[in-house]
Amino acid sequence: MAIQNLEDLLGHTLEDVYFAEKKILKSLPKMIKAADSSELAKAFEAHLGETEEHVTRLEEAFKMMGKKPKATECPAILGILDEAEELMEEIKDADTLDAAMIASAQAVEHYEITRYGTMIAWAKELGKKDIATLLSKTLKEEGAADKKLSSIAESRLNREAAA
Amino acid sequence: MAIQNLEDLLGHTLEDVYFAEKKILKSLPKMIKAADSSELAKAFEAHLGETEEHVTRLEEAFKMMGKKPKATECPAILGILDEAEELMEEIKDADTLDAAMIASAQAVEHYEITRYGTMIAWAKELGKKDIATLLSKTLKEEGAADKKLSSIAESRLNREAAA
Repeated sequence: MAIQNLEDLLGHTLEDVYFAEKKILKSLPKMIKAADSSELAKAFEAHLGETEEHVTRLEEAFKMMGKKPKATECPAILGILDEAEELMEEIKDADTLDAAMIASAQAVEHYEITRYGTMIAWAKELGKKDIATLLSKTLKEEGAADKKLSSIAESRLNREAAA
Repeated sequence: MAIQNLEDLLGHTLEDVYFAEKKILKSLPKMIKAADSSELAKAFEAHLGETEEHVTRLEEAFKMMGKKPKATECPAILGILDEAEELMEEIKDADTLDAAMIASAQAVEHYEITRYGTMIAWAKELGKKDIATLLSKTLKEEGAADKKLSSIAESRLNREAAA
């Protein structure tokens, strides 16, 4: 990587988040399979569909920058997902595992929320309104997914795990 | 680790975040030194003071759970900070580096926001109101630090880096 200005930094961050979204695509099926609560499994399934769309939007954003889509290893998402997988292996109790998976998924959402928020701010500063508008759709969906997970957690699962 | 229920999971997450806060304490002085904008350096300095307080609050939370403070390696924060350090080494232009450091610091804040939010929800479900109240103070400060960084980014730095 050779980052000399804000445009290069936006390009690098697109590559980082492209890598992250593709890793998330691989993790979600494992989480769907491991979920005990059918409400939680459905939320993960819905987010899998959204994540496919997020990958497509990133490919469009690369095109808008005159670049080919490229994934650059993102140590942050690898760390977040490693932690999630460690917990999935360790926890045997179904309700406690659901609580842990919700927390892991929210850590993933927050990583994406901060990165998309940053990319949108940079795209606006660089006058790239098309990219800002496109990525804002994804940011909105990541925020909604995070809120949905909070409501699932608060309404049922945590109470069960504490029982 | 042996996580059999939600109380164990809360204890494990306290250990994870204790590790993370201590790592952040070590990273912030490097970021203060590298910051070109004095406004940004001051924001990092203020957050260093807050982070020391967050470590103390976590030690109190361990005590409230009848546990000794313990740090468990947190791959997520290591990944986020690795990525921040890679960018700090790579970027030579001062304004672009400031923009990248703000983004890195916001990724750190969002990791903490999601983890504290989760721990507060679990503490409430477990009837541990004292822990929920204590950690809510930290959550509020992490949220405010994130907003402060957004306002620094939007008002000045991104525009400079794009110039």
